[in-house]
Amino acid sequence: MAFISKLKNIQHRNNSLLCIGLDTDPAKLPEFLRSHENPQAEFNRRIIEATSGIVCAYKVNTAFYEAEGERGWRAMRETRQAIASSVISIADAKRGDIGNSSERYADIFLNELKFDAVTINPYMGKDSVAPFIQSREQCAFILAVTSNPGAKDFQYLKVGRKVLYEKVIETALKWNTKKNIGFVAGATKPKELRSIRKEAPNVPLLIPGIGAQGGSVESAVRYGCDDTGHLAVINASRSILYASSGENFAEAARAEALRLRDEINFWREKFFTQ
Amino acid sequence: MAFISKLKNIQHRNNSLLCIGLDTDPAKLPEFLRSHENPQAEFNRRIIEATSGIVCAYKVNTAFYEAEGERGWRAMRETRQAIASSVISIADAKRGDIGNSSERYADIFLNELKFDAVTINPYMGKDSVAPFIQSREQCAFILAVTSNPGAKDFQYLKVGRKVLYEKVIETALKWNTKKNIGFVAGATKPKELRSIRKEAPNVPLLIPGIGAQGGSVESAVRYGCDDTGHLAVINASRSILYASSGENFAEAARAEALRLRDEINFWREKFFTQ
Repeated sequence: MAFISKLKNIQHRNNSLLCIGLDTDPAKLPEFLRSHENPQAEFNRRIIEATSGIVCAYKVNTAFYEAEGERGWRAMRETRQAIASSVISIADAKRGDIGNSSERYADIFLNELKFDAVTINPYMGKDSVAPFIQSREQCAFILAVTSNPGAKDFQYLKVGRKVLYEKVIETALKWNTKKNIGFVAGATKPKELRSIRKEAPNVPLLIPGIGAQGGSVESAVRYGCDDTGHLAVINASRSILYASSGENFAEAARAEALRLRDEINFWREKFFTQ
Repeated sequence: MAFISKLKNIQHRNNSLLCIGLDTDPAKLPEFLRSHENPQAEFNRRIIEATSGIVCAYKVNTAFYEAEGERGWRAMRETRQAIASSVISIADAKRGDIGNSSERYADIFLNELKFDAVTINPYMGKDSVAPFIQSREQCAFILAVTSNPGAKDFQYLKVGRKVLYEKVIETALKWNTKKNIGFVAGATKPKELRSIRKEAPNVPLLIPGIGAQGGSVESAVRYGCDDTGHLAVINASRSILYASSGENFAEAARAEALRLRDEINFWREKFFTQ
């Protein structure tokens, strides 16, 4: 199934634009889990089990798994396997390299681990992105404007009548012949989000930055959705994962995820007739 | 020891600017090694053993290890351990993420695996680079102008009177208070290499693109070195690793590495009085 169809389907079925970011930091796991053979994997398994009916996607931040070496890599693999095939799985890897190296990354994340999408850094251009957009079923979310303070250093440099991130979008849309390119646009930048959605009315937008990073849910929905109130994938990580540090962490995560899904849907109903 | 001193020391001691890129592709390994418990690690161990007296650095391309999952990660770890502490080890990871994620990458590559340097993608700006430049002893090679065809898509966009990669260099040099920032500049772009060296006379330049990618050794040396004929780290991967596919692969790699080191030194002697 084409990536966009799969995304729309799950957004319908679970009535949710929420993506849970599995930035699972071993140092922040509940005490009682730390003696588990692979605490990251077990934590994620329980989070996924408690929330898979109320999200559209999970985003696995590869940094937190690679930092644990072989064990972390196994946790990433097991986490991917715990995600139901109807729910979108995103490897937040921010990769990008010369063609033959990007092919290796695409091979592990898309073919081997079978993620539905990978986040990609555009700096190295077309051949660095190409291996990630071979299949209509799998999406490359290209970094456009990110949610962090450093976004201002280069992404806003004036390039002719546009700024750099707008050129990234303009250029990447030309590569989008298989309709499997999306963009990462931070919720901390509502004005930019609005202009990106205008420029790219029918592509998926991965929107991090609500929750711990302080972006507004209202703007993420209002400016991030397509005109039917879909295709925004709104990510929260820490506020959900660490909602409780006790044995009830999974239920607490579910409660926070539900609260957030409903807040998102409150704004969806306000701004979109579905 | 400061990174630059360590680099200069090994360039002196081994009389070499050559870096061997360990882009070790399991599919290209000699037949007889494939039954080994961990062929990538064993291949690298033998390459390193055969060449460690004639190089200044090894560059481990993380894509080729991650593509093998847990086993590849172990191969990367064992490869790092096989590199003598006097020789520069570079994780060619091209990472870059928001602060707390970049910290996780820095933790594994710099603190845990103890690479001397990591390659970094600048698109996300200062806080994405900061975790990699905390120690004077470890270097962040920031992507400036890369050796691949896609380099032209964004790196050459006109930004005021400069182009993007020049702005990247100008900005990153302001972050270089610990003298531990270097740049990646492809040997396939001699004119750009020359202007980068002029702009940044005393920083290490990691120069991929000779060998299989077709960049000229003469230009890499002439324009990549500082004014004493050092600080260029000239990388070749495939032409050395796969010099022979037989049991003599390590000796063949050594012969090719020696040939390349000597070619590099031929031009060093021509252009620099040492």
